[in-house]
Amino acid sequence: MTEHSLWRFSRALHAAINERQLQDLEPLIDDDVEWAIFGPVDMFPFLGARQGKAAVMEVCRQLADNVRVHRFDREQVMLGVDSAASMLRYSLTAVDCNKPISLRLAHFAQFRSGRLSRIRVLIDSFDLVEQALGRPINLPRIAS
Amino acid sequence: MTEHSLWRFSRALHAAINERQLQDLEPLIDDDVEWAIFGPVDMFPFLGARQGKAAVMEVCRQLADNVRVHRFDREQVMLGVDSAASMLRYSLTAVDCNKPISLRLAHFAQFRSGRLSRIRVLIDSFDLVEQALGRPINLPRIAS
Repeated sequence: MTEHSLWRFSRALHAAINERQLQDLEPLIDDDVEWAIFGPVDMFPFLGARQGKAAVMEVCRQLADNVRVHRFDREQVMLGVDSAASMLRYSLTAVDCNKPISLRLAHFAQFRSGRLSRIRVLIDSFDLVEQALGRPINLPRIAS
Repeated sequence: MTEHSLWRFSRALHAAINERQLQDLEPLIDDDVEWAIFGPVDMFPFLGARQGKAAVMEVCRQLADNVRVHRFDREQVMLGVDSAASMLRYSLTAVDCNKPISLRLAHFAQFRSGRLSRIRVLIDSFDLVEQALGRPINLPRIAS
């Protein structure tokens, strides 16, 4: 049984972010990849949508410039033949300020011939913003 | 082929929220259900973790008190035998102020004998907070 594309992509992505080993990631990305990490792009310019391999490699370089992954726990995972979905909890450090950040995210990924062709990532973005700011945002209680 | 538990649960949940038809939802929830919607509980007390059927039925009542579902698009879905994961985009109204809210969420659900035994929901929480406040939160750009 061959290894699922998710595991290879995941290893290569983490090596790209932590060790700037981008050359191992590049062959695992489809030329016409659709990529989206939903979140506040004003604060984090490496969030948002990207189209095509060059744009995705560039955003992975930006991720490598900005975060280090210390640990991740895959809390949930579902695998299809050419697809995968996970919910993960990451322990990160923001590189410029050495600030620890704990982040929960969910992703849905599609592969074509072993290459990532589409990924959509949702993050608990309010929690991320508060940690990055280093202070809570005061919110009214607006629901009963 | 019998219908996947996800579809029955989804119909019953939406009827519970929009029409307060909670009696159709109750038999689809396992007594020992584990439930979590990650998000800012200070602003939205119906978010957070719940344990057991009674607590989950109560939180569904609170959801019905606070939101109406106008429309949802299931952008991604993965089904296992007793499990399911989706990414959805909802058009909601906040009941008390009649405010329209567009919300993206991801869920991972587990079923046991056709009943929901575990669900974890991630939402694009910063986007939700800004819409509920009715104004953008000013954020510094903190990444390169």
